[in-house]
Amino acid sequence: MTDTMFANDVAARDAADPLAHFRERFHLRDGLIYLDGNSLGALPKATGERLARVVADEWGEGLITSWLGASWSTAPRRIGDKIARLLGANPGEIVASDSTSVNIFKALTAALSLRHERSVILSEATNFPTDVYMMQGIEAFSGGRVKAMTVAPDAVVDALSEDVAVLLLTQVHYKSGRVRDMAAITRRAHEVGALVVWDLSHSAGAIPVDLNGANADFAIGCGYKYLNGGPGAPAYLFAAARHHAATPVLSGWFGHARPFAFEEDYDPAAGIERFQCGTPPVLGLAALEVGVDLLLEADMAELRRKSLALGDLFIERMAPLCDAYGFTLASVAEHAARGSQVAYAHPQGYQIVQALKEFDVIADFRAPDILRFGLTPLYLGYGDVVEAVARLERVCATRAWDKPQYHERAAVT
Amino acid sequence: MTDTMFANDVAARDAADPLAHFRERFHLRDGLIYLDGNSLGALPKATGERLARVVADEWGEGLITSWLGASWSTAPRRIGDKIARLLGANPGEIVASDSTSVNIFKALTAALSLRHERSVILSEATNFPTDVYMMQGIEAFSGGRVKAMTVAPDAVVDALSEDVAVLLLTQVHYKSGRVRDMAAITRRAHEVGALVVWDLSHSAGAIPVDLNGANADFAIGCGYKYLNGGPGAPAYLFAAARHHAATPVLSGWFGHARPFAFEEDYDPAAGIERFQCGTPPVLGLAALEVGVDLLLEADMAELRRKSLALGDLFIERMAPLCDAYGFTLASVAEHAARGSQVAYAHPQGYQIVQALKEFDVIADFRAPDILRFGLTPLYLGYGDVVEAVARLERVCATRAWDKPQYHERAAVT
Repeated sequence: MTDTMFANDVAARDAADPLAHFRERFHLRDGLIYLDGNSLGALPKATGERLARVVADEWGEGLITSWLGASWSTAPRRIGDKIARLLGANPGEIVASDSTSVNIFKALTAALSLRHERSVILSEATNFPTDVYMMQGIEAFSGGRVKAMTVAPDAVVDALSEDVAVLLLTQVHYKSGRVRDMAAITRRAHEVGALVVWDLSHSAGAIPVDLNGANADFAIGCGYKYLNGGPGAPAYLFAAARHHAATPVLSGWFGHARPFAFEEDYDPAAGIERFQCGTPPVLGLAALEVGVDLLLEADMAELRRKSLALGDLFIERMAPLCDAYGFTLASVAEHAARGSQVAYAHPQGYQIVQALKEFDVIADFRAPDILRFGLTPLYLGYGDVVEAVARLERVCATRAWDKPQYHERAAVT
Repeated sequence: MTDTMFANDVAARDAADPLAHFRERFHLRDGLIYLDGNSLGALPKATGERLARVVADEWGEGLITSWLGASWSTAPRRIGDKIARLLGANPGEIVASDSTSVNIFKALTAALSLRHERSVILSEATNFPTDVYMMQGIEAFSGGRVKAMTVAPDAVVDALSEDVAVLLLTQVHYKSGRVRDMAAITRRAHEVGALVVWDLSHSAGAIPVDLNGANADFAIGCGYKYLNGGPGAPAYLFAAARHHAATPVLSGWFGHARPFAFEEDYDPAAGIERFQCGTPPVLGLAALEVGVDLLLEADMAELRRKSLALGDLFIERMAPLCDAYGFTLASVAEHAARGSQVAYAHPQGYQIVQALKEFDVIADFRAPDILRFGLTPLYLGYGDVVEAVARLERVCATRAWDKPQYHERAAVT
C-alpha cells in the first residue's frame, strides 16, 4: 500500500467510525493527541455546566435541604446502579464513594469477614502498588491473624489453596494491559473456597465486564480513568448480593441502616449502602455521574471493537520503530488478553515520554522502563494513532529525548 | 428598653460589626435566615469560579500534567497547612483528604499502633454516631484485641485508666454545643499514658483551637461545616510531629514515601503525608481551599466574640418562648463551655424545624427532640438572630408546625 493509499484508508476508517461523534462531547485542545486517558480521562464538555449547577443551585440555593431535595444522599447508590450497567452487575450491587484504595480495604475486610477461619490475602507481586500496600496494612494491623502474600503473576492460580481467604487481582494490568480471565480464575478460587476481589480500574469503560456472569464476589475500581469522572473522582465498590451480610470494617454513619436516627450502635444497612462510610463527596460524585452517563450512551461491544482496532493499528505502526529504535512490545498482542492500552519497554522510556509532550502527544511512563499508551475509543481516532506514532518517530529520529532536563525524573503520575 | 430602642440597638451592633463585610462574600438568598451552617456551611461566592477554573483549565487543558503543573498532588498538604493556622498546629502536621469517618479510622489505628500493649478505645456514649461506629468497626475487626468502650459524658475523665490506649472525644458536642477543655483532658489522659483523638468538626472555624498549646496527639474534622468547603468536602487529619512514626492502617499509595516509584512494598512517607491514602479528591479539595482561605481572612478572636454575642442575644430572645411554648435550653449558657450553636429541646422539635422553613428560617433537628441553631459569624448578623426568633415565635403562636405533613419524619440531615 502506498502512503497515500494508507492515509486514505485511515481517513476512511475514521469517517466510518460509529463512535467518532463522541469526540465532540469532550474538551480536547486541537493538535493534542492524548494517550493517557487510562490515567486521567478527558473532560466531558457537560461536566463544567453540571458542576456549576450543583454549586450555584443545589449548594448555594438549596443548602442543607439538597441532601434530600437534590438527591445528594442517594447519589452513591444511583451512580453505582449506572456503573452496574457497564459491568454486568445488578442494581443495588455497586456503590460509588471514597477512593479506590479505601474501597480495596472495605472489599478485602468484607471478604475476610466471610472467611474468618482463613488467613491469607493473595495477590500478584506486580499488581498496582496501592492494592498490595492496602493488603500489607491489613496484615500489619491484624496482629498475625492475616497474612498478605504476593506471588509472581503466572503463579497466582497455583498459589490458590485452602489457606487463602481472598484473592485480590486486577483484571487489566496497569502496565502491560494484560487481561485476566475473570470467570476462570473466579471459578478456580471458589473451588478452594476462596473469594476474589477484582480491581477493575483499567477495565470499566474500556472492555466489556460481566461481573455476575463470572460469579464475581467483590470488585472495586477507579472513577477517573475510562469513566472520565475527573481528577481524584470517587471510586466504586461491587459486592454480589449474596455477600451483603459481610462486615466492612469502615463502619461509618452512611453505612448505617438509619444514619439520621443518630443511634449509638452500628447497625449496618441491609444492602450495598453498608459499603459506604462517611458523608458522600457530592462535588466529585456529580462530575463522575456526567462521565458515566456519557459512557452509557456508547455501545460497549462497539467500543471494544474500536479499542482493539486502535491497538492493532498502533502495534502495526510501531513495528518499524521497534527495529530502528529499540522499543519492545510489553503488551500481549492477542486480543483476548489485551486491554485498552499498549505498552512498550525502552531504556530511555522516561525521557521519551517527556520529549513527546513537546510534540503534543501525552502518554505516560511507569517505572522502570515502560511507556504506556492509553487508547480511549470515545475521543481517539485512527488518524490520531497514526499521527502519534509519526511524532514518536520524529522524537527518536531527532533524539529529541536526549536533553539534560529530561534526565532527572520528577514525580510523574 | 422599648421595642424601638431595642431595634435601634440591634441595628447599631450590626453597623459596628467588624465582620459584617464577610456577608457579601457568600451567596445567600435575600430573606433567608440560615442557621444550619454547622451542618453545611454556605457557599462562598468565589467557589464557583475556582471550580470552573479547575475543571476547564486544569483538567480540560492541563489534563494529567496538572498533577504537577497545577499542584494537585500537593493540595492535601497545602490545604492542611492552611487549616493548621486555624487550629494552632504547625505546617506539616495536618493533611486534608478522605471523609471524617475515614480519618477517624486512621487516627484511631495510628494511636493504637503507638499503644499496642493497651486495648481500650474510650469515648462518650453521646458522641457523634460515626465516631462511635468507627470504634466499633475496629473492635469487630481486631478479633478481641481492641475494645470499644463508651461511658456517660461526665464519666469520661474518670474512665481514663492504664487500659485506655486512646480517647476519642469531640471538642464541641454536635447536639448541645458543649465545649470540652482540650488542654485539661489531654493532660489527664497523658497522665495515665493514653493518647487522645480530638474531633474538631464543630470547632474548626467556630472557636479558637490551639492543638499544640493543648499538647494534642491527633485530631480530625469536617470540611463542610464552618470551613464552608461544600457538601461532602474532604476532611482533615492532624498528627503531632512527635507521632509521625505511627502506622495508619490505610496504607494507600499516596501515603507512600515514593508513590510514583511504584515499589512493591509499603514504605510510609516520613511526615504527615503518610496519613493520606488514595488519590486526592481534586475537585472537593479545590472547593475546600476557597472556604479555608476565606476564613483565614477573619480574625479568630473577633469571630469568637461575635459568635458568643450572637448566642447571648439568641438565648435572651428565646427566654419568653421557653416560658410560653415549652422550649428548654439544651446548651450551656456559660461562654467557656458553649460552641457556636445554641440548642433547645422541644417535644415537637421536628415539626417546628419543618414549619420554620416556610418562614424562611433553616435550622436543624437532631433526634429525639433537639432543635439546633448554628450561629456563623461570617454570614449572620444580630438582626438576623432577632428576626429568626421572631419568626419562630410566629410558628409557635400560629401553631404552624401542627400540620399532617410534618408528622412523619423524613431522613433529615
